[in-house]
Amino acid sequence: MRMDIAALFPDICTAVLNASITGRAIKEGKAQLFCHQLREYTENRQKQTDGYPYGGGPGKVMFVQPIVSCYEHVLEELNPQAQGLPSGENSETVPPDNSLVRPHVILLTPSGKPYTQADAVRLSQKENLFIICGHYEGIDERASILLEAEEISIGDYVLTGGELAACVVADSILRLLPGVLSSPENYEEESFWNGLLEYPQYARPAEYRGMKVPEVLLSGDHEKIRKWRQEKSLEKTQRVRPDLLENHKKAPS
Amino acid sequence: MRMDIAALFPDICTAVLNASITGRAIKEGKAQLFCHQLREYTENRQKQTDGYPYGGGPGKVMFVQPIVSCYEHVLEELNPQAQGLPSGENSETVPPDNSLVRPHVILLTPSGKPYTQADAVRLSQKENLFIICGHYEGIDERASILLEAEEISIGDYVLTGGELAACVVADSILRLLPGVLSSPENYEEESFWNGLLEYPQYARPAEYRGMKVPEVLLSGDHEKIRKWRQEKSLEKTQRVRPDLLENHKKAPS
Repeated sequence: MRMDIAALFPDICTAVLNASITGRAIKEGKAQLFCHQLREYTENRQKQTDGYPYGGGPGKVMFVQPIVSCYEHVLEELNPQAQGLPSGENSETVPPDNSLVRPHVILLTPSGKPYTQADAVRLSQKENLFIICGHYEGIDERASILLEAEEISIGDYVLTGGELAACVVADSILRLLPGVLSSPENYEEESFWNGLLEYPQYARPAEYRGMKVPEVLLSGDHEKIRKWRQEKSLEKTQRVRPDLLENHKKAPS
Repeated sequence: MRMDIAALFPDICTAVLNASITGRAIKEGKAQLFCHQLREYTENRQKQTDGYPYGGGPGKVMFVQPIVSCYEHVLEELNPQAQGLPSGENSETVPPDNSLVRPHVILLTPSGKPYTQADAVRLSQKENLFIICGHYEGIDERASILLEAEEISIGDYVLTGGELAACVVADSILRLLPGVLSSPENYEEESFWNGLLEYPQYARPAEYRGMKVPEVLLSGDHEKIRKWRQEKSLEKTQRVRPDLLENHKKAPS
């Protein structure tokens, strides 16, 4: 997979994704990551990336031009054989759609559809992703329309910018690529994999400040442990996320 | 506000939160940020921070001890006047609860309750936050119980670690602190503030690749613009997030 991120603060994405587990995956060539500074794609003299919204209102709106130009730069890199790719306003020269490798475009915005693990799994199958980080009061609507962006929100809260949201989406996708996690089992037992929250976990010591590990976990009785965990999962889901239970199909036990 | 983050990869949090808008807020003293390496708080010789789960299963579970020790280190810093704070296992020496400044503890985990903007607003009122980043197959349940942690999930997806989730929560809180954003108006018009998604925004140029800015936005008629935006907000919310409409109380217009 090749992942391109277009941002006003690309260093955040570079720092985050080149660290830890995703960083190792990139170093080992399991994915390619390019973080683009949108300012470098501006065509105005002042290298401005944003301006006041038409119709008034607070804040600034990110310009459409640098975003589209950045996308087309990536398009050229993905299609070195293609001649006459669009450059600036000459969009008539775009070759027919089906002859080009086009990245799937994601726009991070609080007004997108809520991101879930199912999206992570779906997007991890794509060969090319182009991720746009919104900022300020949003981006010019035309960028989203022109690039047929999938608008995604990572949650019902507001961040200083889309970079962190892009990192979240990128991280959730990269960890699903083959060979990135040491054991595929690691994610099959996780929360959201089967629609229930995870059961409580315990590690050494068996007693800490008077608090003991539940006896059943020390029993060695695998069937009892499995049942206890299933119960605890269900209990926690009922208490914290009753909404998940509505969608949960009882797995054959 | 003082914010302490306990993590296995604290450099991620340092890099993210010291950049951009939150970084400026920290430099200007509007908030204090301390990112702790949990490994430095281990009491075992191998400086292990995690181990196999009791009862079996894939992955590793973060030990309770380094997390509690890190918390108590912060407690000592917050209460320099207090004598005989707990150290290691001597929890009998804790002074009565009400005499100590205690940070509010947050644990990032996919099995926590979903984080929303209302939580960000609530948490931005706290003077001290202690944020624990989960990893691997979770953390020992006893850490959460002992520290009375508020378990939070930033969304229904799985990340390689809790660091990114901690950054998301920290960012959403820090931007709400007084003086961090240039204009408080900037967040009052945002998505989720009034329960609807934001209307489409446009900036220069008025025409880009044949796509024009909607005429109403160029009309200068503020009442018409307000109505158009309200309609578009409602329309987008209906299409992308019908769930928000159920909770939405129509604002007086």
